[in-house]
Amino acid sequence: MTKSDVLPAVLDRVDRDLDASLERLFALLRIQSVSTDPAYAAHCREAAEHVAADLRGIGFETSVRPTEGHPVVVGKTTGKAMGDGKSNSGAPRVLFYGHYDVQPVDPIDLWQTPPFEPRIETLDGGRKIIVARGACDDKGQAMTFVEACRAFKAVTGSIPLDVTMLIEGEEECGSKHLFGFVRDNAAELRRDLALVCDTGMWDPVTPSITTSLRGLVYEEVRLTCADRDLHSGLFGGAARNPIHVLADIISAMHKPDGSVAIPGFYDGVRELPADIKADLAGLGLTPEKFLAPIGLKIPAGEQGRMMIEQISTRPTAEVNGIIGGYTGEGAKTVIPGKAMAKVSFRLVGAQDPDKIRKSFRDFVSARVPADCKVEFGNFSSAPAFDVAFDNPALTKARAALAEEWGKKAVTVGAGGSIPIVGDFKTVLGMDTLMVGFALDDDRVHSPNEKFDLKCFHKGIRSWARILAALAG
Amino acid sequence: MTKSDVLPAVLDRVDRDLDASLERLFALLRIQSVSTDPAYAAHCREAAEHVAADLRGIGFETSVRPTEGHPVVVGKTTGKAMGDGKSNSGAPRVLFYGHYDVQPVDPIDLWQTPPFEPRIETLDGGRKIIVARGACDDKGQAMTFVEACRAFKAVTGSIPLDVTMLIEGEEECGSKHLFGFVRDNAAELRRDLALVCDTGMWDPVTPSITTSLRGLVYEEVRLTCADRDLHSGLFGGAARNPIHVLADIISAMHKPDGSVAIPGFYDGVRELPADIKADLAGLGLTPEKFLAPIGLKIPAGEQGRMMIEQISTRPTAEVNGIIGGYTGEGAKTVIPGKAMAKVSFRLVGAQDPDKIRKSFRDFVSARVPADCKVEFGNFSSAPAFDVAFDNPALTKARAALAEEWGKKAVTVGAGGSIPIVGDFKTVLGMDTLMVGFALDDDRVHSPNEKFDLKCFHKGIRSWARILAALAG
Repeated sequence: MTKSDVLPAVLDRVDRDLDASLERLFALLRIQSVSTDPAYAAHCREAAEHVAADLRGIGFETSVRPTEGHPVVVGKTTGKAMGDGKSNSGAPRVLFYGHYDVQPVDPIDLWQTPPFEPRIETLDGGRKIIVARGACDDKGQAMTFVEACRAFKAVTGSIPLDVTMLIEGEEECGSKHLFGFVRDNAAELRRDLALVCDTGMWDPVTPSITTSLRGLVYEEVRLTCADRDLHSGLFGGAARNPIHVLADIISAMHKPDGSVAIPGFYDGVRELPADIKADLAGLGLTPEKFLAPIGLKIPAGEQGRMMIEQISTRPTAEVNGIIGGYTGEGAKTVIPGKAMAKVSFRLVGAQDPDKIRKSFRDFVSARVPADCKVEFGNFSSAPAFDVAFDNPALTKARAALAEEWGKKAVTVGAGGSIPIVGDFKTVLGMDTLMVGFALDDDRVHSPNEKFDLKCFHKGIRSWARILAALAG
Repeated sequence: MTKSDVLPAVLDRVDRDLDASLERLFALLRIQSVSTDPAYAAHCREAAEHVAADLRGIGFETSVRPTEGHPVVVGKTTGKAMGDGKSNSGAPRVLFYGHYDVQPVDPIDLWQTPPFEPRIETLDGGRKIIVARGACDDKGQAMTFVEACRAFKAVTGSIPLDVTMLIEGEEECGSKHLFGFVRDNAAELRRDLALVCDTGMWDPVTPSITTSLRGLVYEEVRLTCADRDLHSGLFGGAARNPIHVLADIISAMHKPDGSVAIPGFYDGVRELPADIKADLAGLGLTPEKFLAPIGLKIPAGEQGRMMIEQISTRPTAEVNGIIGGYTGEGAKTVIPGKAMAKVSFRLVGAQDPDKIRKSFRDFVSARVPADCKVEFGNFSSAPAFDVAFDNPALTKARAALAEEWGKKAVTVGAGGSIPIVGDFKTVLGMDTLMVGFALDDDRVHSPNEKFDLKCFHKGIRSWARILAALAG
């Protein structure tokens, strides 16, 4: 078989094998691997063993590795794979990350059929969906990658890249033992590139690669003015009111144009390349479209920035909570001694969490009257993660997705964070491409979770194309 | 006896009769007239009957008038008093208001001696104090006026003015039946001037008349942005944060000079006359002196105003409570859908509570984005009360106090409010002079309540002088 014949043959194999692929997914979906509930520990182990055996069947050298929590499955291509160095063709060695654990199923009575009895449902218009807990998150998504590897193995006898599989069992309860596992096994897990299939499409016809995750700094500000609560009749107009001080600080945090006023806040924030910006503009995410579902219309972020920039590629400062004084029913004429606010910052690019935290604390302290006291608490400090737009693997993956879906693949930033991806960067020195096929209506974490059959099928084909592209 | 001989004779009588005055006060103090606890209802009635009988003994025509709560004692001078019109000399007819009820005694184990067993204690340095529940508030204070009347009666055979006594039994539990009683008996209670003895001295050597009480407007602001709480990773930077909106509003409420920025807020606020201002300045109430006990140093009110103005004769805007978002332990990256603040205004002079409320609501509404919603709740709306500084009765009373204490009597504004005084003005059309002899260390409402014997004694003499001065 010539090189140019391989991919068509693999894709053909994917199409012909779809029913068997589904059967294999269903077998995994039947395992009740709820990670957060200790009662399901044996099911989690069963899922790990199941995944390991399956990978072994397509040529991975696999092991089920214990942690203090649920085990981690590690699999490595052997024999005909690329060996221990980079391939001759310069193809990257990749680490694929996924998870075999699922969310709890409560409230169980809202499920139309039992959550661990997967089924195909045909909706009006012929759209077919796979319904089960984990159908999408992440068993269905992870299996798109595994099935693509399987098809290569069937057609060519080998997997075209050096692939290390890292399938954990605690993602739904915080991945708390994975961080240590990655550190302890850094040499083994450090490859050239990580791949993750746990994110979504832009919409049902537009593929997407998540190239950035915002970082987070989370601070608590505790302000004390008088050493007790005061009667506003007696002290009103003379004693400093900590709610006023906090309000002044919060109000000063943003400029009238919606940008953040803390000195140095934008240090390390990069402008998007013009072509990427044009791609994002082409998505047409209007404020109306994005905000209508939550009852709003007017964007609150930086003026002159597209909605999609505001939610993904621009940093933010938000007050997540505030409390002070009397908040019960009716009236109490108190001037409180204390007030508290929780303030968080979403970071992008090369913003330095430590500098942002210090700059914020200085900003606050400068606005606290000399006879009052401020204390800070720090609950989170994580840098942003992003892939350079000129990363060759990204370019190849975008092209592969465009071929499969007939539409340019967008690169998006996720507003939230996937902590392990940060560790892949900081501990293992690897970039991560997050390619996923979830849709907004997949009811992830909710009753009647589903994954579109089309997403599963084209997801497998997409990974086949990406593997071929990366193999070069 | 010539007119000029009368007052010296009355004062002499007060001095000689002090032990008997104390005995009469003790008799009243022994009655356990705790108004808020229904178990003491019979004691309250006993106190009312006791007061009525005592007043009858000095020539008042008295009645114990039922209410739905504890009874009200009404007494009127008769016979040789000034009759049903103004006296020939133009002396005002006065209504004296006091209360026979007292606060509960809890925590009882903190009392050094039983609260209803009054005693004289001699402190280091020879200072004598009357210790009992109600020794000051208000049995001791009210009795200073009664004893002054008694001395006049003893020396001249009559009380020198037309005096109506209004002694209620529910002041310590909100005077809730007195408002209706005053309305129902307006014709009978409407005199030219009200006198109240339930306030304090400026300090142990400086007499004081309270000439103003601040009014109150109390509003709740409920703000809704998104129709649910949002994840800040997903929506941060795009969705309006109601805490930010509230903070902007609160921050905008005051100008940098500490004045209130709400349009029209100062309409009806009067400047103090220069002589009154000079008197207040002479008191030397520095911010350090006033704020040190609560752990503060820097006044928070209007710049260029004395501390004593800030707390008594100037209007204020204070946030009494605020809440929104996550306020528990640790971090939650939420952008709340709602936030709430309670805001109150202390009013002075002729500020119109309705206009202030409307102006505030307009001020807030103008700052709420078009896609958000604000609702208001109103918990209080009371105008300020004040006596004109050129009121002739005030001038006479100040002069009388200055003679007794050898020091100019200051006029002060109270930051809080005594609701019935507002009703004397609005329902009965009467000004009120609040003259009291309490000291800051009287432990009113607390265990071991006391009243300085000197305050009791000179209080009686003060009222004798004021009665003589008003009789002209």
